[in-house]
Amino acid sequence: MLGGRYPPVFIFLKCGIITKDNNFEHVTGRLKFVRILSGIRPTGKVHVGHFVGVFENWLKLQDEGNDTFYFIADWHALTTHYEDTSELKEFTFDLMKTLIAVGLDKSTLFVQSAVKEHAELMVLFSMITPLSWLERVPTYKEMRQQITSRDLSNAGFLMYPVLQAADILIYKADGVPVGEDQVYHVELTREIARRFNYIFKREVFPEPKELLSKVPKLLGTDGRKMSKSYGNTIPLITTEAELSKMVMPMVTDTNRKRRSDPGNPEVCPVWDYHKAFGTADKPEEAQWVVEGCTQAKIGCIDCKKLLLKNMVQKLQPIWDRYNSITDAEVKEAMEEGNEKARKVAQETMEEVREAIKIMY
Amino acid sequence: MLGGRYPPVFIFLKCGIITKDNNFEHVTGRLKFVRILSGIRPTGKVHVGHFVGVFENWLKLQDEGNDTFYFIADWHALTTHYEDTSELKEFTFDLMKTLIAVGLDKSTLFVQSAVKEHAELMVLFSMITPLSWLERVPTYKEMRQQITSRDLSNAGFLMYPVLQAADILIYKADGVPVGEDQVYHVELTREIARRFNYIFKREVFPEPKELLSKVPKLLGTDGRKMSKSYGNTIPLITTEAELSKMVMPMVTDTNRKRRSDPGNPEVCPVWDYHKAFGTADKPEEAQWVVEGCTQAKIGCIDCKKLLLKNMVQKLQPIWDRYNSITDAEVKEAMEEGNEKARKVAQETMEEVREAIKIMY
Repeated sequence: MLGGRYPPVFIFLKCGIITKDNNFEHVTGRLKFVRILSGIRPTGKVHVGHFVGVFENWLKLQDEGNDTFYFIADWHALTTHYEDTSELKEFTFDLMKTLIAVGLDKSTLFVQSAVKEHAELMVLFSMITPLSWLERVPTYKEMRQQITSRDLSNAGFLMYPVLQAADILIYKADGVPVGEDQVYHVELTREIARRFNYIFKREVFPEPKELLSKVPKLLGTDGRKMSKSYGNTIPLITTEAELSKMVMPMVTDTNRKRRSDPGNPEVCPVWDYHKAFGTADKPEEAQWVVEGCTQAKIGCIDCKKLLLKNMVQKLQPIWDRYNSITDAEVKEAMEEGNEKARKVAQETMEEVREAIKIMY
Repeated sequence: MLGGRYPPVFIFLKCGIITKDNNFEHVTGRLKFVRILSGIRPTGKVHVGHFVGVFENWLKLQDEGNDTFYFIADWHALTTHYEDTSELKEFTFDLMKTLIAVGLDKSTLFVQSAVKEHAELMVLFSMITPLSWLERVPTYKEMRQQITSRDLSNAGFLMYPVLQAADILIYKADGVPVGEDQVYHVELTREIARRFNYIFKREVFPEPKELLSKVPKLLGTDGRKMSKSYGNTIPLITTEAELSKMVMPMVTDTNRKRRSDPGNPEVCPVWDYHKAFGTADKPEEAQWVVEGCTQAKIGCIDCKKLLLKNMVQKLQPIWDRYNSITDAEVKEAMEEGNEKARKVAQETMEEVREAIKIMY
């Protein structure tokens, strides 16, 4: 571990929380080969927002040589989705396949429910976690106030951050890159680590730090927040033909009503996609889009055609991999990842039990 | 399973809760061979109150041929005793040895922390348990108000009944004999079972029923409630010489100040011991005590000598067994019990996972 301890990734998708750390390069520059940890909840099919907001980050961290652990947080999915679990297994499986297709196969990919030690550590952490710490979690208060479409009054939703602390600390992750709304969760994780070490008089857990990150927002095809319930998402795994059907009618700068009106990329959702899918990094193409739009030299359809080309360029290899992986291969990778994760978790639990002086 | 479903034992000691079901004979008469479950928290050495209040019941249930599961609830011990776990392992071990010495070796004796599935089921139950169900638990409110010597503000203390529901339901226990203050816990367990079966559309869990039981109260040697903190307990495992030192100075009917004053057994703590240790069942001895006391024909010392004789008669075989069991034998019995319990728990968890449709 070089220098001080710094934080891994911890992102729960589908909770309205998609994070990307923009300072990663800076931080990971100092922190090669740290333990990185992140989770994603299997509550639906992933969309392109997850790809640019999360998976690209995960890939970068992996490819920089860090010890990356990424898991599918199926227990966490239950906190908000216990009422309909009919597709939980399918989502979990498909997510694993997608993570592999994305290129994360050099990471330890595993399923939370396969590593029972998370639950054990959560039970133990609950004993030393003051209730008031949980009641003051900002996302807890906010979500209970704002989300009325789902039942969040269950005990599991209150205990969510304790399970999250167990998820992070059982792997002794060094840090946790998160969106602003998740900072308190990592703070809480640190507090639990500190309290555990203090009460049981042993430095079992490091204190992971959050990497505060900004979220590159990709809006839905209708210009609203991308959300399954709005039916405006662009799935990550699709085909060129299907993608075209979604990209071409996308809402653009609403002030550009006619072809002859000049547009403003800064307020155009499509320009955000261009930035996310590489157009902005190609000076010639970027100039063509920006000039064409602001001077009304190109129409939105022209602009979207270029976007489609660049999206396909980036996504086609993922689609190809996704389509070539067999279920048996996914299953095998899953079991292998579970086994690796379990081994690390079990080692930590040995220390935990010794510190607590509990029989098992 | 004969007839309807009826309840096993579930007792948490050292929580001020010692229960004994007086209707057992009646109920178990109809319910031979039901699954009985009970737990005891390893928060100190057991005393004679546990023996007459709990273990004798457990023995009876075992000897009647029920499928008895008795466990040492070491995770539960942490809810109130996380601050000092220095003796947790020793208490757990000694408790196992004591249970064997008492004669419970025909039951499945195991340690909670050895069966990780309890934690997994607790996490899953927390997802479907409304917080309000926990907040309204009477013992929760009362204990938080009344107990000021320990920190009960941790999340684990609130989640206690959820873990307890997992403890009970993972073995599909048929019922739970409890003291009045624990009735709500069993009610909650039933509610969780019902809610689980309803949400996941499968009858995985039976609804255990409580056997409401009265507590035969043995007071401490000073006439106050038996409590480690008062230093007035009589340990179950001791020697005749030590027992004598505790029994002989015991507080009796405080109105009988002089040898010549007539006493009243009904208000004398020693008479409760006589009832618990068999004097009352021997007409001649019972008459000798009652008449001797109420007519001032015998002194309290005479009365206590008889009690000591009867206590030793009942306890000596337990002491002998306790002293003859080797640590290796205790360890072996523990591992064997854990394995048996784990097998049942794992079978239930298979059904649970299938019902939830979760990957693992």
